[in-house]
Amino acid sequence: MKSVVAIITDFGLKDGFVGAMKGVVLNINPDAQIVDISHEVEPFDVFQGAFLLKAHLSYFPKGTVFLCVVDPGVGSERLPVVVEAGDYIFVGPNNGIFDFALESLKVGFKAYKIEKYTLPVISQTFHGRDVFAPVAGHLSRGLKPQEVGSPIEYTFHLKWEEPYREDQWLVGKVVYFDRFGNCITNIPCGDYKEALFRGQKLRILSHFLQAKEGEPALICNSFGLVELFFPMSNARERLLVKRGEEVRVR
Amino acid sequence: MKSVVAIITDFGLKDGFVGAMKGVVLNINPDAQIVDISHEVEPFDVFQGAFLLKAHLSYFPKGTVFLCVVDPGVGSERLPVVVEAGDYIFVGPNNGIFDFALESLKVGFKAYKIEKYTLPVISQTFHGRDVFAPVAGHLSRGLKPQEVGSPIEYTFHLKWEEPYREDQWLVGKVVYFDRFGNCITNIPCGDYKEALFRGQKLRILSHFLQAKEGEPALICNSFGLVELFFPMSNARERLLVKRGEEVRVR
Amino acid sequence: MKSVVAIITDFGLKDGFVGAMKGVVLNINPDAQIVDISHEVEPFDVFQGAFLLKAHLSYFPKGTVFLCVVDPGVGSERLPVVVEAGDYIFVGPNNGIFDFALESLKVGFKAYKIEKYTLPVISQTFHGRDVFAPVAGHLSRGLKPQEVGSPIEYTFHLKWEEPYREDQWLVGKVVYFDRFGNCITNIPCGDYKEALFRGQKLRILSHFLQAKEGEPALICNSFGLVELFFPMSNARERLLVKRGEEVRVR
Repeated sequence: MKSVVAIITDFGLKDGFVGAMKGVVLNINPDAQIVDISHEVEPFDVFQGAFLLKAHLSYFPKGTVFLCVVDPGVGSERLPVVVEAGDYIFVGPNNGIFDFALESLKVGFKAYKIEKYTLPVISQTFHGRDVFAPVAGHLSRGLKPQEVGSPIEYTFHLKWEEPYREDQWLVGKVVYFDRFGNCITNIPCGDYKEALFRGQKLRILSHFLQAKEGEPALICNSFGLVELFFPMSNARERLLVKRGEEVRVR
Repeated sequence: MKSVVAIITDFGLKDGFVGAMKGVVLNINPDAQIVDISHEVEPFDVFQGAFLLKAHLSYFPKGTVFLCVVDPGVGSERLPVVVEAGDYIFVGPNNGIFDFALESLKVGFKAYKIEKYTLPVISQTFHGRDVFAPVAGHLSRGLKPQEVGSPIEYTFHLKWEEPYREDQWLVGKVVYFDRFGNCITNIPCGDYKEALFRGQKLRILSHFLQAKEGEPALICNSFGLVELFFPMSNARERLLVKRGEEVRVR
Repeated sequence: MKSVVAIITDFGLKDGFVGAMKGVVLNINPDAQIVDISHEVEPFDVFQGAFLLKAHLSYFPKGTVFLCVVDPGVGSERLPVVVEAGDYIFVGPNNGIFDFALESLKVGFKAYKIEKYTLPVISQTFHGRDVFAPVAGHLSRGLKPQEVGSPIEYTFHLKWEEPYREDQWLVGKVVYFDRFGNCITNIPCGDYKEALFRGQKLRILSHFLQAKEGEPALICNSFGLVELFFPMSNARERLLVKRGEEVRVR
């Protein structure tokens, strides 16, 4: 079966960890279509992984198996799970990595504890390869989620904070920086007229090239969120923006 | 159809933008063979993307769809195009990214404005995912270029500067730095006897290991261009070479 | 044939070198399943490449063709080889890159000098594309290793140093740093009770989360080797660990 296995990790690309996971998947399902979403999540930053999964998942085909391993608690008691939600299957640790995706899908879902289909020997430090990759391989070739182990109650760990209202303002904050240094907020796109950042007014534009040189501005980004950018430059570095900084719109 | 979709972007690998594009391609053509050429083009550097496309394209199978998105003008009036040239198809913005490739192919070509086969909702900031990826997906499974929209006149934006003659010298310049810090010039390989860089003579070698320790030299690189290197080291960093610096050969 | 072609290089991802190699492979075998192990081996560091190949190879399917190019001597007299060893095939320069893998496989193997199946034109600087990739492409679709050229004697270049005994201690050293800054030693996992690093006692743990904040510790890693780590942090940077530093266990 040609199912897509889409991978998010914080493993980076230099050490071959992701390659080994793909070797395991292909050993089980030689036809798998493997896609990297990101392996450059900051080490141990479950929030970032959860954010990227939510941002991108709807662009993947039905039946995609999302293999997501940002797992500071590897080897401890956090549960290894498979979650079936609508047309998608998620495989990884139950530590929050799937929280935003499951919330945003707005469908019922079922979770199972992984008890079978792992590699025969399981290391204490690399469940991505020994537990999650083989299970993803089997799922991508048609194994049913309920066959991997007992149903469990999925535990949510992360909370997506929505912007709040204050006077006429909607008050959000910067939650993620992309490679261009754009500062993505938790404010959903909308028909805003005014924006404030560090007490200064910012223009709200509909595409990047409308910006005036040297002047930061806001735009509705491709995740459906308001983002702060600097024309043809890196807003994060130019303005030394920190995660959590406040942005206001109305 | 198993066509290759080869991708060049400046999106980097950390944010999942490329993964989302691949999800879109595979949703349309589950059999596509997707190959990354580079996603580490410097942000907004259309020249670099155009250079890499030209350097590598002839190594790809006939029928390859090149999906190239270095697109500082996303959302503005630059046209989204499909170009058919010989055995290859190019998809991306008409902003110069295909210029060197089309010039070097030395075949007739036809360009079409993308008017169909995009995603139903098109963001203002990510046409790679919403416009170009779906069109590449369709083309990779057999859609004809002329089916995406009206024929248009392709507009060239970049000019590949050839080295010029001065006295008996051929005068070129550094146009690109590779990961090893080799400094690639615009001088085509040839049977040169002498070379000058910053007024100093450089040796011209036929392979890297002929170099003397601590002594920069020139070599004919794998793109068919003369490059300046430093034995087992990084010439760009060691010599603080800048793009545009002059190199002379005769 | 859907064979896996798994690639290790020091080419990085920014210049498209790896993409061109994949183009060559797919031109020959459109069905190849190509997997990146790493392209971030330090430039010219054959040891690192050899280490990663050994660490990961057993997770790849039978029949996998490993295409490994860390090749400071490209264009000089080091031989281009294909090695058949058990269920795996290795393609690359005979410069040490396969040494640890062949040693660890503990099977008989045969080596052949590459004399055929290269691209028609071979550059002096990029045998990854012109020599090794086409041969890997052919092997992945069923070409027999002995068909590429004459049998030769494989030459070993690297020596894997085992830890040595001193009094009751097993004395090893740091051989590799992973992306998390974990410091991997050459000491095989075992039932050790005590450990010393820079004269200080370290705890030996069974998983990362047992560690006390701010206190480095040892663990058995996923390669079956002892590694030094720093809880939720980067041991290499925090402790300024150097390759070759001594670690003792008993």
